[in-house]
Amino acid sequence: MKRSMIVELLKGQGAPVGDIVTVKGWVRTKRGNKVVSFIALNDGSTINNIQIVVNPEDFDQDLLASITTGACIRATGKLVESQGKGQSYEIQATELELYGIADPKEYPLQKKGHSLEFLREIAHLRPRTNTFGAVYRIRHHMAYAIHRFFHEKGFFYFNAPLITGSDCEGAGQMFQVTTLDLNNLPKNSEGKVDYTKDFFAKQTSLTVSGQLEAELAALALGGVYTFGPTFRAENSNTPRHLAEFWMCEPEVAFNDIHDNMDLAEEFIKYCVQWAIDNCMDDIKFLSEHFDKELVDRLHWVLEKPFRRITYTEAIEVLEEAVKNGKKFEFPVYWGVDLASEHERFLVEQHYKVPIIVTDYPKEIKSFYMKQNEDGKTVRGMDILFPKIGEIIGGSEREADYDKLKQRAQEMHVPEKDIWWYLETRKFGTCPHSGFGLGFERLLLFVTGMANIRDVIPFPRTPKNAEF
Amino acid sequence: MKRSMIVELLKGQGAPVGDIVTVKGWVRTKRGNKVVSFIALNDGSTINNIQIVVNPEDFDQDLLASITTGACIRATGKLVESQGKGQSYEIQATELELYGIADPKEYPLQKKGHSLEFLREIAHLRPRTNTFGAVYRIRHHMAYAIHRFFHEKGFFYFNAPLITGSDCEGAGQMFQVTTLDLNNLPKNSEGKVDYTKDFFAKQTSLTVSGQLEAELAALALGGVYTFGPTFRAENSNTPRHLAEFWMCEPEVAFNDIHDNMDLAEEFIKYCVQWAIDNCMDDIKFLSEHFDKELVDRLHWVLEKPFRRITYTEAIEVLEEAVKNGKKFEFPVYWGVDLASEHERFLVEQHYKVPIIVTDYPKEIKSFYMKQNEDGKTVRGMDILFPKIGEIIGGSEREADYDKLKQRAQEMHVPEKDIWWYLETRKFGTCPHSGFGLGFERLLLFVTGMANIRDVIPFPRTPKNAEF
Repeated sequence: MKRSMIVELLKGQGAPVGDIVTVKGWVRTKRGNKVVSFIALNDGSTINNIQIVVNPEDFDQDLLASITTGACIRATGKLVESQGKGQSYEIQATELELYGIADPKEYPLQKKGHSLEFLREIAHLRPRTNTFGAVYRIRHHMAYAIHRFFHEKGFFYFNAPLITGSDCEGAGQMFQVTTLDLNNLPKNSEGKVDYTKDFFAKQTSLTVSGQLEAELAALALGGVYTFGPTFRAENSNTPRHLAEFWMCEPEVAFNDIHDNMDLAEEFIKYCVQWAIDNCMDDIKFLSEHFDKELVDRLHWVLEKPFRRITYTEAIEVLEEAVKNGKKFEFPVYWGVDLASEHERFLVEQHYKVPIIVTDYPKEIKSFYMKQNEDGKTVRGMDILFPKIGEIIGGSEREADYDKLKQRAQEMHVPEKDIWWYLETRKFGTCPHSGFGLGFERLLLFVTGMANIRDVIPFPRTPKNAEF
Repeated sequence: MKRSMIVELLKGQGAPVGDIVTVKGWVRTKRGNKVVSFIALNDGSTINNIQIVVNPEDFDQDLLASITTGACIRATGKLVESQGKGQSYEIQATELELYGIADPKEYPLQKKGHSLEFLREIAHLRPRTNTFGAVYRIRHHMAYAIHRFFHEKGFFYFNAPLITGSDCEGAGQMFQVTTLDLNNLPKNSEGKVDYTKDFFAKQTSLTVSGQLEAELAALALGGVYTFGPTFRAENSNTPRHLAEFWMCEPEVAFNDIHDNMDLAEEFIKYCVQWAIDNCMDDIKFLSEHFDKELVDRLHWVLEKPFRRITYTEAIEVLEEAVKNGKKFEFPVYWGVDLASEHERFLVEQHYKVPIIVTDYPKEIKSFYMKQNEDGKTVRGMDILFPKIGEIIGGSEREADYDKLKQRAQEMHVPEKDIWWYLETRKFGTCPHSGFGLGFERLLLFVTGMANIRDVIPFPRTPKNAEF
């Protein structure tokens, strides 16, 4: 008999009341007495359980005894409107089948209220908790919203390579990729590792960004976006850093920095709106358990246009605040990179709306950003969000071959690594812009979770690559 | 003035005839005489160019001289119905703006008819050719079709980690990931590399499959799918192998092998149908230039249900063929892994329909496949396509803890690497199934391209990690 999804049944869409239905899933709880048992069953399609009403007399007692928290079962029975509070429909069981037990003495998710730290240690089982079921469903929805947004705009998904011979940012610590036997390394005549013997016949790393390749594609296909894993080998053990994380990087020919801001604002609002429209059961659960202001905060960012200010204005606001007694951990002066505390002050306390900061000092930004005529600033733009700080970073790109080449030299980006990137400015160059969204940053914002390790299924951090 | 997309204008959807429109793009060709010039402009939104009609008297002669193949321009003018053959609308230019030249003496895409081999060497520019524009647009559409298919079925996109401490298949050569300085390696007391000093405090590699992690998720969320890059460090320099390629791996709780075949057939047909419905201009171009039978072949796989046969039946058919004089390069006998020539014979010459082969000898399949009661075969299933051979491989998974553990031991998969995988069979196990689609294999099929290096933007192969 065909399995009904619990999400459909609870919405009244899976089958008409009175029908015999079959559900399959994992037991969340079982309670009751000799006259009646109630099994709360979850199949992962929704955070909500369906209640299976069991008359113990109708079933084998050993079977019923095996149906404990975590066990996997099939239940078949009549779908009826529920008398109980807080549930719409329930199933009066006529058949029960046990697929897999979960021995109460061994199953680690026996009782409620495990710490997030403990659940990270059993990341192979945590998808079965309400919390991580909710997070992973939202993660799916946010990924789907990204693809849908860009598809509907006529953008093309473009897959930049993960294994690379060059380092986009000219900075960023990278993971090396090799097939050499580290216990038996080939050496060249100078006694150094002989990379001509390596798989790619040269030294290669995992990419820190697909942007440069996305620019090549934009200068041919018009609008493109990447969305995939990127890597940073920074030894940062913080709730905001992962060694392996997902980035979405749109890149658009003919967009200037204003078009870029318009696109980024529309994009992030589309994602948040999608979450509100499609994930509210999960969001409400997370809000209740982790972040009471979550739902309000989601609505808050949609309410008004983002405020657009220059870096110079931002510094003036921060300096004024310091003058009025505000204490920051990090110093504030023109030329400094904004710290998270600065970003959050601007958004949460000063402007009280998400902001887009533009025209940063060129010294603190990458070589590829378009230079302003003042000789000091570049057309970068960062979107700052409450609680999160920077959620999107982007820029109009330098489209002029000579300026780009010179800035790359000044910032010690080897020309041999980016000759192909420079060539796009030589042949049919045009104004273009793009930005990057840290996918897990978006998820922190939308789920209300506090630690980035809790919004990706298997976090990779220093000294941790389990599962 | 807002840019119109050429794909919209040519469909008659961008603006009404008579309107002043602006397009931006790259010059494919310019021809004409003193009285009139025709610029064929492409903006990447479609393989079709829009014709810009220019009266040379209205423009600066130096500007016109700079508008050569590959140059990037803006053209503004009146949208009119075209008198010319093969085009619906054209633009009578009133303004032209040059964004970037492409010096005819230097621009490598000056003339038509470059070899695919040459274009691989300029992979940074090949998106600007008709061929690769078409391939990358189709690549986008196939990725979008994948997300859409699974989303509409209530599946969740699940991101397996790329950096891993374990090797899913118990085989497969892997790339090592490290932050150790290879010219100054830390050694332990035995004189071996001291991996406790590495970033993850142990030896790590790039994943060859996200399947095991996807199974964990399926046993909690119901239906999930991965879609992302995977890696094989095999020294295979063939038109069918890449070191970095994309895989889509759905995994579904409660599905047996028959449900799995149904899902896989529906899925691949959905993708092919999507290509027919959304990419026909690009497909027709590729068909014309590379594979005359492409369009027919796409329709052909949709026409009939796939034929489902067992491995044993397949071997019987092949042995019968050999008896009747058919010559194969590789031998045919029960127990052998089918070679591409065998697969293609079965599909193209014998059954004349895509086939699904099931119940393979356990010795040639992975440890995680569900064992049949005959003690000899496992519930694997491969979908074989014309021209491509295997396009999908999957199985029902072994759900029994003891059987799985024993088979892992027999196949020398270390328990320390898969303890977490085994545990899912201990706690709430259930029948489940899944499969993997090699994304570039699908693209070879849908584009008609012959070399896998030509369906991924920046191919990684032995001795090659450029761009």
